[in-house]
Amino acid sequence: MTYAGSGVDIDAGDEVVELIKRDVRRTYGPRVLGKHGGFAGCFRLDYNEKLFQRNYRDPILLACTDGVGSKVQLAVELGVLDTVGQDCVAMNVNDLIVAGGEPLFFLDYIGFNKLTPKQIAAVVRGVAQGCQLAGCALIGGETAELSDLYQAGEFDLAGFTVGVCEMSRMIDGSGCEAGDVLIGLGSSGVHSNGYSLVRAIVKKAKLKLDKVYPEVDADRTLGQVLLTPTRIYVKSIVDVLHRYRVKKPITAMSHITGGGLPGNVPRTLGSRLDAKINRKSWKVPPIFDFLQKRGNVEDQEMFRVFNMGIGYVLAVRPWFAESIMDQLRRQHEQVCVLGKLVKGTGRVLIG
Amino acid sequence: MTYAGSGVDIDAGDEVVELIKRDVRRTYGPRVLGKHGGFAGCFRLDYNEKLFQRNYRDPILLACTDGVGSKVQLAVELGVLDTVGQDCVAMNVNDLIVAGGEPLFFLDYIGFNKLTPKQIAAVVRGVAQGCQLAGCALIGGETAELSDLYQAGEFDLAGFTVGVCEMSRMIDGSGCEAGDVLIGLGSSGVHSNGYSLVRAIVKKAKLKLDKVYPEVDADRTLGQVLLTPTRIYVKSIVDVLHRYRVKKPITAMSHITGGGLPGNVPRTLGSRLDAKINRKSWKVPPIFDFLQKRGNVEDQEMFRVFNMGIGYVLAVRPWFAESIMDQLRRQHEQVCVLGKLVKGTGRVLIG
Repeated sequence: MTYAGSGVDIDAGDEVVELIKRDVRRTYGPRVLGKHGGFAGCFRLDYNEKLFQRNYRDPILLACTDGVGSKVQLAVELGVLDTVGQDCVAMNVNDLIVAGGEPLFFLDYIGFNKLTPKQIAAVVRGVAQGCQLAGCALIGGETAELSDLYQAGEFDLAGFTVGVCEMSRMIDGSGCEAGDVLIGLGSSGVHSNGYSLVRAIVKKAKLKLDKVYPEVDADRTLGQVLLTPTRIYVKSIVDVLHRYRVKKPITAMSHITGGGLPGNVPRTLGSRLDAKINRKSWKVPPIFDFLQKRGNVEDQEMFRVFNMGIGYVLAVRPWFAESIMDQLRRQHEQVCVLGKLVKGTGRVLIG
Repeated sequence: MTYAGSGVDIDAGDEVVELIKRDVRRTYGPRVLGKHGGFAGCFRLDYNEKLFQRNYRDPILLACTDGVGSKVQLAVELGVLDTVGQDCVAMNVNDLIVAGGEPLFFLDYIGFNKLTPKQIAAVVRGVAQGCQLAGCALIGGETAELSDLYQAGEFDLAGFTVGVCEMSRMIDGSGCEAGDVLIGLGSSGVHSNGYSLVRAIVKKAKLKLDKVYPEVDADRTLGQVLLTPTRIYVKSIVDVLHRYRVKKPITAMSHITGGGLPGNVPRTLGSRLDAKINRKSWKVPPIFDFLQKRGNVEDQEMFRVFNMGIGYVLAVRPWFAESIMDQLRRQHEQVCVLGKLVKGTGRVLIG
């Protein structure tokens, strides 16, 4: 018997490495050391880059891991494999910047039933594109063919990111005060949460993924709208943090993932403030209205599962709100004043 | 419709967090910041710990990701879920120390079809135990229930580790010379590579996982022998590196994973040396002889798929070989002189 005979294709692995080399290289900066294929990815921490001081006084490493969840299955159904990579990067780096840090590098893990080298390369290309958008290097990854473990045609995609933050500039919500303004940043769509419900609605309401529903989007099919990659907020947020490094007017941030606004805003608020959010302060994108109507989902459930159009939230000192919003707009963010912080017990009041 | 109705159990997630809290906490040192449940895991890099200098001159971050592969399926078949976590940690941290660094923290990702909170907690307990053995903190993780993606009863386990190394002390094999002695460290068994072949042999030769085969092990069943967790070499290697910090007698290291000795030793050797290994310098453990005989696997294939009893290899300056071996023995490693480096072209010659 041989290893190849037991179902593991070693040559295919080498072909993947060859196919992804260029995409991976494109994410490298001068801080990536060593060559592709070493035992570990190597990243020089204290390099004299624009955003880095020569010496940290007390560097904190930040790390996140997350997957794309069942959005991957939608990608498989639609045969579009090169966008979920950006989702995977986004889910991780958007979590990472919440603490006030900036991502340095990323690693991906793809487990699959049976993918061709070209298909794997498409997934990794999406990851590399996400890394470029997030300004981080793709310094490692693993692909594992596990045909008895994954269902036919399926794969899973998980990622890991590491970032750094100077201790004295970490944002943990402890500086929040009543009166702080809540700024919301627009999402690019459903992002990467709630896809079990999305797929259940599509199935039950017999929606067609290859059909254009004009009430959702005039040009794109439902499948295309649902596959829109998760927005990456890294450059906008890192830029704002950098500009206000001394005055520190940003007191808390939240990445709106599973649990929606009510589940994620309290994670950094603490227990002595409430977030009062005015539902009319932004327009819920049509895809959410559509899913709600077709799936007959209750209002509250929608807000607990989906981002409803707001992908990232900042709490800022009121006298800085206008200038921070201006700057975020210059970074092409859709910005709105969601509401404010009031004395309370750590709840989110959406009214 | 509701999210819970679409198959996602949020309460189960909370129960998992409750169950794993203690195991996770046990891996924390004073360098872990923040509380369980934040958006990102936070780790203080420059803390005044025993092995750390107050200020790095040029810290290099090292990162690895790997999964356990089809050993997970063996764990599912045997109903033993609390050991593959150590395998997952081992596969990553043993790769990381090859560059001369030491692991700082770990994150895990578990994707599954359907696991109870207790089963997930068992997997994470294994990860936490592995982290304790490797001296690294488990600062994050993700569990994802993806029932249409994974086959019934199955799960996948991937991990990610980050470590640090001072630039001037990195080991990349560039200092290797002809005459350097190759020291091998004993493996604990099959470790975590080649399990597709193992499972194919078990199936074809109709082996029984719950049976004791005296030629393999007098007391343990075949399943128990095959599930033996991968040895973690971190403490031994970090200790040796620390003792010889000035003289730097260790010129290259290799973690023996998929590809065996011939596939992994050359990864750090470069192209101007061969590794001459004497096959009689160590005793191949009985499990490998057993698998080879029952599976009718050729000799060369065995060495290309399995570690054959050697899990980690060091190349060291000849005049330090004895004292390094003594020290490794004191760390309870099984040690042997495998052979030496000779002028060549980057091959491994096993004779």
